[in-house]
Amino acid sequence: MDRRSFLKTSALGGSAAAATTLAAPAYAQGNRTLTMVTSWPRGFAVLDDAATYFNEMVDAMSDGQLTIDKKAPGELVGAFEVFDAVSSGQADLYHSADYYFIGQHPGYAYFTAVPFGGTAQEVTNWYHHGGGHELHTELGEIFNLKSFIAGNSGSQSGGWFRNEINSADDFNGLKFRMPGLGGKVLGELGASVQNIPGGELYQALSSGALDGLEWVGPFADERAGFQEVAKVYYTAGFHEPGSALAAGVNLDVWNDLKPAHQAIISNAAMATTHTQLAETLANNGAALARLQSQGVKTLQFPDDVWDAFGAASKTVMDENMGDELFATIRGSFEESLAQSSDWLLKSDSFYVEQRNRVLSAG
Amino acid sequence: MDRRSFLKTSALGGSAAAATTLAAPAYAQGNRTLTMVTSWPRGFAVLDDAATYFNEMVDAMSDGQLTIDKKAPGELVGAFEVFDAVSSGQADLYHSADYYFIGQHPGYAYFTAVPFGGTAQEVTNWYHHGGGHELHTELGEIFNLKSFIAGNSGSQSGGWFRNEINSADDFNGLKFRMPGLGGKVLGELGASVQNIPGGELYQALSSGALDGLEWVGPFADERAGFQEVAKVYYTAGFHEPGSALAAGVNLDVWNDLKPAHQAIISNAAMATTHTQLAETLANNGAALARLQSQGVKTLQFPDDVWDAFGAASKTVMDENMGDELFATIRGSFEESLAQSSDWLLKSDSFYVEQRNRVLSAG
Repeated sequence: MDRRSFLKTSALGGSAAAATTLAAPAYAQGNRTLTMVTSWPRGFAVLDDAATYFNEMVDAMSDGQLTIDKKAPGELVGAFEVFDAVSSGQADLYHSADYYFIGQHPGYAYFTAVPFGGTAQEVTNWYHHGGGHELHTELGEIFNLKSFIAGNSGSQSGGWFRNEINSADDFNGLKFRMPGLGGKVLGELGASVQNIPGGELYQALSSGALDGLEWVGPFADERAGFQEVAKVYYTAGFHEPGSALAAGVNLDVWNDLKPAHQAIISNAAMATTHTQLAETLANNGAALARLQSQGVKTLQFPDDVWDAFGAASKTVMDENMGDELFATIRGSFEESLAQSSDWLLKSDSFYVEQRNRVLSAG
Repeated sequence: MDRRSFLKTSALGGSAAAATTLAAPAYAQGNRTLTMVTSWPRGFAVLDDAATYFNEMVDAMSDGQLTIDKKAPGELVGAFEVFDAVSSGQADLYHSADYYFIGQHPGYAYFTAVPFGGTAQEVTNWYHHGGGHELHTELGEIFNLKSFIAGNSGSQSGGWFRNEINSADDFNGLKFRMPGLGGKVLGELGASVQNIPGGELYQALSSGALDGLEWVGPFADERAGFQEVAKVYYTAGFHEPGSALAAGVNLDVWNDLKPAHQAIISNAAMATTHTQLAETLANNGAALARLQSQGVKTLQFPDDVWDAFGAASKTVMDENMGDELFATIRGSFEESLAQSSDWLLKSDSFYVEQRNRVLSAG
């Protein structure tokens, strides 16, 4: 299936035509309100914070000419129905994590996070200066969307377990929540993987419907209360080393926006990513200490478990390589990552190692 | 000297009064042009890129109602005169690196980078979610400025040398360019430290006025051409592990801007930081490879040189502790850094180590 040819001959032309038709009535008295559907319950730590910041900034920067009416899951559509709702025009834009939509296209995994992929900074390097945003745009056009990364909650913790993980066999039969391609990797190890919206996770873990789960990191996890029902916490995970959030705007709506409002949305998305990642990383340390004081045991997976994650990840990633656009996105991402990663080892990583060595000796 | 008391009783009140007086005439026919002075020659890689992006986005997001007329060094004032020009109202805002202004107040070092300080991400965590922006604001008010971080060029390379550095003694008598508190640290090691604007560095290194220099990193350094006149390059440095740039707006001008335009400037600054850091990090790897292909030898300083950097840094940092606001800024920064750093070691650093181990074995 050649989606790229499909795109060039069909979707773009169709959207442009639709935009022309819609242009006149969209701004009533110079103002416009967009309906946003999200995958986050209102006030949900870190995730809904990002959507709220984005919306407030669009409102402030446009002097109230462009406002966003945010709907939590269930108010208009369900948490995982936001993509189809915006694609079809039922809503104007969504705020979510694009890897929830790998069923629509596996390439969406790269616009949140992939197993053994990039840290938040490495993903950002690719997205803004390595071709990522252009590929996100190309992918979005297939579904009548204009897509932006609009948030990042950093490296996701390995997750919450009732018991320690001593070998890869311990995943066999485990009922575990992990979305995206990471979930498929745990499936390779024999886990029974489920994707459940964030707002329903506490109940699922409490009731035993889940044996374990990964959510975000200490700051968000603490607010969700998982420490009340599981006591083993792995700080580093293989599955989402830098998890981006995304805003997807219906393409007809996008094409109909004033250029100034398009610039506001694009920059609000970048500012949201910038501040949300900082919020997460500024708060994770203290949150982890509080979790530990409540009896949570923090661990790292042993090397042979990481080896098993690596082998299963290769299998899962390769399964999607029959799709031309997936292969293009993967190639672009991996080329950028190699460059980013090599320099960061020679600069940031070496520096941090020396800083910690020198300061601990001083 | 109690600058905080001075501030509360004097500077704020004065600015508010001035703003009231100026409010009426500033927007002519609803539009306003601000004069920006910068420390960067036009087109200067990485640095002028950030100022240009910032200005273009302010123009685009305000629909042309707020435009910025950028002046390179020498067009209105010199590269290091931008702070005083904006403070006095000769220009409306500057784009520069705030550590050029440690003569005005040593606390400005923290709003670019300090020796053994934070990586770009750690600095961002502090700035947006650890009290940094509030302290930048407090410091700016003393000088009639509203200040924003607006750019980051990441971890600065250790620098360019004619000969290898085998011990800390090799810095003794070396004519070296390094601004900020890092320069004072090299002074402790006996170097003859000079601060020269970026646009004049190539000539100074060529002529022998300098024996060596640090500038930014491979991508910016290559464009400056230093590889033509020095062949030894240290990739990691102690002095600026994540160098922020800043926009400083005259406080009367700021108070007179529409709230929407204030929001645009604030978010444009964040988006600039986000995209410029990614630009730098996305390009450093390939630039380093090109430098190596031109005969540049890349090295890391040995441990005992890092130890000497550490001891001299402690001396220099402690020298400023008599200033109350410097001590407050330092305390705030170090508290945030400890939290950020500890979590990043348990998440990103551990992950990157495992990723590299697993992928190199696979």
